[in-house]
Amino acid sequence: MATINVGLLGLGTVGSGVAKILIEEAELIGQKLGYNLRLAKVCVRNASSARNYSPPSDLITTNPDEIVGNPNIPIVVELLGGLEPARSLVLKALASGQHVVTANKALLAIHGREIFQKATEVSREIKFEAAVAGAIPVIRVLKEGLTANRIQSVFGILNGTTNHILTRMTQNGLTFQDALSEAQKSGYAEADPTNDVEGFDAAHKLALLTALAYGTLPQIADFHVEGVTNLEPDDIAAAQEFGYVIKLLASSSFSPTDNRLEIRLHPAMLPKNSLMAGVNGVMNAVMIRGHACGDIFLSGAGAGMMPTASAVMGDIIEASRDLLPGAAPQVPSLGWKTLQSWSIKPQAEARLSYFLRLTVVDKPGVLSAISGVLGRHNISIAQVIQKGFDPNRNGVTLIILTHEAIEKDLLAALAETDKLDALTGPTRLIRVENQI
Amino acid sequence: MATINVGLLGLGTVGSGVAKILIEEAELIGQKLGYNLRLAKVCVRNASSARNYSPPSDLITTNPDEIVGNPNIPIVVELLGGLEPARSLVLKALASGQHVVTANKALLAIHGREIFQKATEVSREIKFEAAVAGAIPVIRVLKEGLTANRIQSVFGILNGTTNHILTRMTQNGLTFQDALSEAQKSGYAEADPTNDVEGFDAAHKLALLTALAYGTLPQIADFHVEGVTNLEPDDIAAAQEFGYVIKLLASSSFSPTDNRLEIRLHPAMLPKNSLMAGVNGVMNAVMIRGHACGDIFLSGAGAGMMPTASAVMGDIIEASRDLLPGAAPQVPSLGWKTLQSWSIKPQAEARLSYFLRLTVVDKPGVLSAISGVLGRHNISIAQVIQKGFDPNRNGVTLIILTHEAIEKDLLAALAETDKLDALTGPTRLIRVENQI
Repeated sequence: MATINVGLLGLGTVGSGVAKILIEEAELIGQKLGYNLRLAKVCVRNASSARNYSPPSDLITTNPDEIVGNPNIPIVVELLGGLEPARSLVLKALASGQHVVTANKALLAIHGREIFQKATEVSREIKFEAAVAGAIPVIRVLKEGLTANRIQSVFGILNGTTNHILTRMTQNGLTFQDALSEAQKSGYAEADPTNDVEGFDAAHKLALLTALAYGTLPQIADFHVEGVTNLEPDDIAAAQEFGYVIKLLASSSFSPTDNRLEIRLHPAMLPKNSLMAGVNGVMNAVMIRGHACGDIFLSGAGAGMMPTASAVMGDIIEASRDLLPGAAPQVPSLGWKTLQSWSIKPQAEARLSYFLRLTVVDKPGVLSAISGVLGRHNISIAQVIQKGFDPNRNGVTLIILTHEAIEKDLLAALAETDKLDALTGPTRLIRVENQI
Repeated sequence: MATINVGLLGLGTVGSGVAKILIEEAELIGQKLGYNLRLAKVCVRNASSARNYSPPSDLITTNPDEIVGNPNIPIVVELLGGLEPARSLVLKALASGQHVVTANKALLAIHGREIFQKATEVSREIKFEAAVAGAIPVIRVLKEGLTANRIQSVFGILNGTTNHILTRMTQNGLTFQDALSEAQKSGYAEADPTNDVEGFDAAHKLALLTALAYGTLPQIADFHVEGVTNLEPDDIAAAQEFGYVIKLLASSSFSPTDNRLEIRLHPAMLPKNSLMAGVNGVMNAVMIRGHACGDIFLSGAGAGMMPTASAVMGDIIEASRDLLPGAAPQVPSLGWKTLQSWSIKPQAEARLSYFLRLTVVDKPGVLSAISGVLGRHNISIAQVIQKGFDPNRNGVTLIILTHEAIEKDLLAALAETDKLDALTGPTRLIRVENQI
């Protein structure tokens, strides 16, 4: 199999995740792609720092020129953060003919015009899935999946720190200051939280989503940016009385009547039954409203080592497909170059909780008989509700929620309870999915 | 600009949507792609049938050979439905060197092995975003965005008809039969609803998601498929008592302990606070759990003319990118070959509802004074709550929810109320987003 080299600038939280995936999932990635991705070099500031994941030491360098401009490394992944030297290194990599993958939203929102222009000039790619909404593949969805849509609006919860703070204020009545202190202690907020709580981080992401939706990359000074620092518990409580939940909402809409964009980032009240209002903690979400697709809602982890690395990897893989000699189609139809042949577990071996509804005669000892049968088959009961006599069913309804059990044990138990004289109707079984 | 021809087999609901987008959005698509997509020919069974959208009559043919095997049409879109002649035409198109886009889940679930094999043999693409979950770009997300993940589970609500029925049963207490009859009357269910209500349609989609997640395309006979026909209102009500909602849930998981897949399609109870439980009506949703990305949740319209056409168009566009001579990068960094320059609407012109929290002295006439100021500035009040005296604020809290108003009018009104002696503290303003 062919091998494509990848160079990493930065080995912080996200960089460690990317290195870990490139090394530990090399076989899986090879099965899907039909060629190998190889971590060729990692540039760090200090070779002896502690890491979340440590790649082999012979891959480590402190000299970015071993990656940027290296003709054997066609893909450069910029995970340094900050504006410089990230900007200079990205521009140099593009000029050297390397594809660039980055998670650096500030860099792109602030220097994006220059960087995207350079990429176009030299026919190279600059990919940034991880710069917006972490693991959620929203860049890919906007850029490729929904291309044929006139995008009417994009809404988003784009900052996990503030969403965590607002969730704690909403669910537990904390003040902003208490929620912030708590988030700082648990690692969800930085020591200087300004960039998050004043809305700048989310505003940078909103600028990028606007560029994808409408082909215009706005400056954040050109639209309303308002953080969450002024919100008080009374606001949150009053919002709830009106049926709303307060979120730090990013929104970007196109008005066809005057051909203008409306871009806003501020705390907003959302109807409490909306999917967006249910996005809590550090989760992010984006809703895209298109003239054809309608509303597409996406949510997932907005930050973190592995979720962000997942997004970076998607970009690395996409960039790598372009590099194969004469390769078309780029993506196998099912996404796997090497199809797999897994066997399927029989349903009888499934392990689930079960909801049972039995109709029984209204006599003493019936519940004991039924629970006895269940017990002998290793079915443990979590909850029972017994209803009054139901003339339509000519019996009493008994509802049982079991703990997790093996399905064949349950079926064996039901085969036995079905034979009890106490049952006056068929038993209903519905499986419970607690993993969602 | 270069032009790439597209041929359409079928002009039913989805085909009409695709034709409409190709014709009406030609300019937008050209701006994004940097080349044109042209609807070259449409094959129909009966040239005089009524349509949701009618392309120019010179594009219409009843002879599929004008499209399949035509060297001037590199992309064939199969929207006939059913197994034959769809299967033969798809195989013939691939063998002729054409890329194929289809929305036909039954065709791929049943004849997928043969069709995907043929596509690989001839290095052509068979794309099927519209075959699963309508407008939601879940195929693209699984196949490309999350490639580097070991997928642990895929969960989905994949059939809009049954989800609509279950929603009506849950929210309005209807029986299955009544909800089905109603769905048939409103066009959400077919005259013969077997394929939907017995779970076959969702099972076909689950087979395809399994193939993308795990590289194995299962037969639906190999896993548990159970529809919704036996569900009774008592089940739904009892589920609610336990804190659950019943959905027809598709699930496919990989067990690393025994290297087997667990695939199931059956009614399942979901925790009522989960995002999946909030997916109602004809909406679909998919949740993908990966070892790196965590849980990614996607929802949107699962069917319908324009939503499904949106997904088909995404595939047509992706296939077309491969066809440009020597084109790399395939996708512009921001998704737009021609960047746009829209102006941004000033925040002062935004039109929203507003939540206001004022602290006022506890005297007669204060509400009247404030509402008078608002009224003079065209701010109409939707709701008011007045709380008792708050010693911490040394005043009475007055909460006002306005109808939609122009922000500059509101700010002018607040500048005026701020000067009232009756106000004893600053006024809080939070915007309300009712579009979500």
